[in-house]
Amino acid sequence: MPKVSSKGEHMPASPIRKLVPFAEAAKKKGRKIYHLNIGQPDIETPEVMMNAVKNTDIKILEYSHSAGIESYRRKLADYYGSFNINITLDDIIITTGGSEAIEIAMMTCFNPGDEIIIPEPFYANYNGFSCAADVVVKPVKSYIETGFALPPISEFEKLITPKTKGIMICNPGNPTGYLYSRGELELLKELVLKYDLFLLSDEVYREFCYDGKEYVSVMHLEGIENNTVLLDSISKRYSACGARIGAMISRNKEVMAAAMKFAQARLSPPTFGQIGAEAALDTPKEYFEQVQKEYVARRDFLIDALNKMNGVFCPKPSGAFYCIARLPIDNADKFCQWLLESFEHNGETVMLAPATGFYSTPGSGINEVRLAYVLNRDALKNAMACLEEALKVYPGRTNS
Amino acid sequence: MPKVSSKGEHMPASPIRKLVPFAEAAKKKGRKIYHLNIGQPDIETPEVMMNAVKNTDIKILEYSHSAGIESYRRKLADYYGSFNINITLDDIIITTGGSEAIEIAMMTCFNPGDEIIIPEPFYANYNGFSCAADVVVKPVKSYIETGFALPPISEFEKLITPKTKGIMICNPGNPTGYLYSRGELELLKELVLKYDLFLLSDEVYREFCYDGKEYVSVMHLEGIENNTVLLDSISKRYSACGARIGAMISRNKEVMAAAMKFAQARLSPPTFGQIGAEAALDTPKEYFEQVQKEYVARRDFLIDALNKMNGVFCPKPSGAFYCIARLPIDNADKFCQWLLESFEHNGETVMLAPATGFYSTPGSGINEVRLAYVLNRDALKNAMACLEEALKVYPGRTNS
Repeated sequence: MPKVSSKGEHMPASPIRKLVPFAEAAKKKGRKIYHLNIGQPDIETPEVMMNAVKNTDIKILEYSHSAGIESYRRKLADYYGSFNINITLDDIIITTGGSEAIEIAMMTCFNPGDEIIIPEPFYANYNGFSCAADVVVKPVKSYIETGFALPPISEFEKLITPKTKGIMICNPGNPTGYLYSRGELELLKELVLKYDLFLLSDEVYREFCYDGKEYVSVMHLEGIENNTVLLDSISKRYSACGARIGAMISRNKEVMAAAMKFAQARLSPPTFGQIGAEAALDTPKEYFEQVQKEYVARRDFLIDALNKMNGVFCPKPSGAFYCIARLPIDNADKFCQWLLESFEHNGETVMLAPATGFYSTPGSGINEVRLAYVLNRDALKNAMACLEEALKVYPGRTNS
Repeated sequence: MPKVSSKGEHMPASPIRKLVPFAEAAKKKGRKIYHLNIGQPDIETPEVMMNAVKNTDIKILEYSHSAGIESYRRKLADYYGSFNINITLDDIIITTGGSEAIEIAMMTCFNPGDEIIIPEPFYANYNGFSCAADVVVKPVKSYIETGFALPPISEFEKLITPKTKGIMICNPGNPTGYLYSRGELELLKELVLKYDLFLLSDEVYREFCYDGKEYVSVMHLEGIENNTVLLDSISKRYSACGARIGAMISRNKEVMAAAMKFAQARLSPPTFGQIGAEAALDTPKEYFEQVQKEYVARRDFLIDALNKMNGVFCPKPSGAFYCIARLPIDNADKFCQWLLESFEHNGETVMLAPATGFYSTPGSGINEVRLAYVLNRDALKNAMACLEEALKVYPGRTNS
């Protein structure tokens, strides 16, 4: 029997999926679970998007252009223009979700064995795509005490070797919710210039910046136009994760020409998703205003509730819809499993993501969890009641 | 300015795309072009599929299961059962087109540097996915004189080294239209067992087998259940290339467990496409009967017309909707470009795919072209009139 590849063997499994069997068993026992573990929003997809798909009149469902439907790319360039990101349709390749944007960008920018520096905690699937591209992730640690602000540039520089070829960030951040300031991004720019690195930036949460804070894109940074690659997705923006539509964007012509060859090999991104995504660009402003208002209210409630609990600390994020909380527990993986296996409060429990899965450094995040505030406030209230009770009775509670 | 990866630099560009600028220029001159160059059928997508998408009533367009919607996988297992391929839903991962099935299978089965043997001519994008996975393609040549039958097993064995980890076939074949017999597949089975290799088989043209000839899948071969991986797509079956729905199928549990980690990293296949694909399983039999009848009539006309031309030879394929013809020309790349740049017949011309792009061995296919009979017979008739005239006046005509 032939053996699977070592890549296949060592490919990291999704940290959250490990808990799925325990969640399924809990459900079978009739337990109600509040899912704060994944970034699947409960917000409705804009009607204008769904209607465009429902009203299609296609006789032959053909391949689209490998870079995506031209009219969509044209309109999408205008969308970026509204954020002061000035690009043309030729700087855009439509991808199958943000996932494929990450995958193609990694294959395009990095050789096997190349190193990229990523502030941790980071989105766990970056590990998967790095593994697929044989790229080595070098984590630079950010800390809950600073709300996961950008680590000092000196910490990045300590990690730089002749193999370092890029830096990757997520802004606003999943899993931290941290929003980088212009100052922080200017520091990254200097670093990128000094060592001639690619700067990949996953900005899929751009619509979710709070408290009047400024969204600064790597595409706003002048003088590193050939270094920056923007990774994007409509999944969170329009609560349309199932459309599988994203984008890879760069002003570096060589990068886009090479990326285009990967895009051509897989023929085209999904047609229905593109039709929906093009229409979604007409989503009324009020949709985003309402969504943002809702997320701010959820965040304020959640952070407040968490910090009121004995021994819990949670910085207040300015973006996305995640936060990372430090809990008075021995081990986040054990705790999250215990919540599903052994705990209930009025027949209910809560599912959280152990933060260990978002750190690359072993032992980090051991007493931290990620919470996604993707449920309405009533559900969040009940979920927090569960968590508070759970922390009182959890056998692995610590005194911190 | 940071450099793109060597993978990005050396990634093969699609051979057909090179001609696209010439086709665009010809169109601008008002020339009508018959596109026999790509496998984009003109057949209508089944109504039952399109209606399912149009009638969706989704409020939140969520991620689906990473392996695909369960009800779809269940029904799909039944579909395979109707071809005597007995599998369960756990043996199936729904992919984003056949492209992703190839990609995940390569990453799962092969390490960087591993060698796979592929009979050439082969589907050009296998090169792209091999390049992405750092897998080395070793072509074994099949010949137009035999209609591109399976090369002798001794030719495969000559290529086997300690790095050989698999064999990949396409059956029925793109670009050849050749349908492997049970005898040929049994020979491959023995080879696979002897050297403990993976046998990857792209069978996306299963519905297009003609003249009462038997479709034999690698999944029918007994005793190599842990070696075989089926790569599939609904693109051609339902003329639904834009849905981007395929499947990777294997009874090897380790392969599927590793593949699942790649599937989880990219989250899920497109939801709309899956909804359509599930409904498409109810496509009435008459649809396929009509489509098959149409393709057979086109094939018969095309092969006949080609072989009647002076100096042209084209074997009659038993499957898919392609054929490869040998023409009395010096260079297929030049000829196909010349057809677009310098030729017209009553204001019309024809676009063909130079077969060179389907061979890995340099110099092979230099006087061969691939024709896809994806246009109706009137169009095919005009296209053949163009080709016949073109061959009379082409400056690089040879005497063969």
